[in-house]
Amino acid sequence: MAGGGAAASALSTPWRSLLQRALDGNAHLKHSTFFQLATVGGGGRPANRTVVFRGFQEQSDKIQINTDARSNKIGEIRNCSFGEICWYFTDTWEQFRISGFIDVIDGSNPEPVKLQLRERAWFGSSVKSRLQYLGPCPGLPIPDDDLIKDAHLDPSAGPVDAFCLLVLDPEKVDYLNLKSNQRLMFTRNQKGDGTNSWMAEKISP
Amino acid sequence: MAGGGAAASALSTPWRSLLQRALDGNAHLKHSTFFQLATVGGGGRPANRTVVFRGFQEQSDKIQINTDARSNKIGEIRNCSFGEICWYFTDTWEQFRISGFIDVIDGSNPEPVKLQLRERAWFGSSVKSRLQYLGPCPGLPIPDDDLIKDAHLDPSAGPVDAFCLLVLDPEKVDYLNLKSNQRLMFTRNQKGDGTNSWMAEKISP
Repeated sequence: MAGGGAAASALSTPWRSLLQRALDGNAHLKHSTFFQLATVGGGGRPANRTVVFRGFQEQSDKIQINTDARSNKIGEIRNCSFGEICWYFTDTWEQFRISGFIDVIDGSNPEPVKLQLRERAWFGSSVKSRLQYLGPCPGLPIPDDDLIKDAHLDPSAGPVDAFCLLVLDPEKVDYLNLKSNQRLMFTRNQKGDGTNSWMAEKISP
Repeated sequence: MAGGGAAASALSTPWRSLLQRALDGNAHLKHSTFFQLATVGGGGRPANRTVVFRGFQEQSDKIQINTDARSNKIGEIRNCSFGEICWYFTDTWEQFRISGFIDVIDGSNPEPVKLQLRERAWFGSSVKSRLQYLGPCPGLPIPDDDLIKDAHLDPSAGPVDAFCLLVLDPEKVDYLNLKSNQRLMFTRNQKGDGTNSWMAEKISP
């Protein structure tokens, strides 16, 4: 069972069609684009939080997540660059566990192509969600509520320093369907020419 | 802000009342008792999967999870005993990130009190859910569907070897309410006499 190369239409990747079906089947639920991202934090302990799926990077299987560059997960990912997404679709009872390397793209990234991706992600999100990056540093104590002022943002202004794009490049996808009780394990094989092929195996749930 | 001791009614623990309110407010949703458990797996990489909340251990804040002793997570937890739960309530937009030490209680546990807990968890789950522990080893390839036979189980029979109880002892609870945009961090302080106190701090979302 072979998937598309990096430059091919990524929907030909076998697990992508399952994921697209799940996204379509749960599209009426706001939380269908939320998943849990696990990383390895301080002292080698696991960390886990809900984040929002911001689509695939064009012409690839890479998963995009917007985050605050000041949040703990940035330091964690710089220390251990692997993550595992657990994405449970509550209406169709399907779970996707997607693991892979995470690329952290903040404003200091030296690659113009990546900075463009970050800018596209910034303008692709609502002005309301951009506003959160102007707020106080996440995770720090709030000594006095009165100190928090309303932030204002020019909708045409580019990404602020705190805006960071995470890109997870899947190398293993563990699919479980609790209605049919089927489980499939997809494993990526990266060829010498940079293209990917995917192997699928039916495993016990 | 002080919580109950280990032997006190655990609902007096400050985050427990928030969690109970979330459980009540989302009780109409089957998936409200599902959460994602992150552990650290092979090669120090994160692992993440959906599991079912099986209640608190009596007179404590310890969270119970049933699992298959043959699943990968058992080896992972024996290697790194920390876990982080990410529990997102889809109707009330509340997230609880609960981290702590995980105790693995399988049939070989030397402590009679823990074996009793495991037995109680076994009989506390439905016969249908007990049946899955009689199936083939989770995560292994299925070479031939025909080889899978219907399993039968005497409802009065005690736990099978594959049945394992996990008990997570919370030491930090990070609560986020996306409707009110409030975030609270609860941190446990274990005193010399074994009782717990909890400190709560309002932090930036």
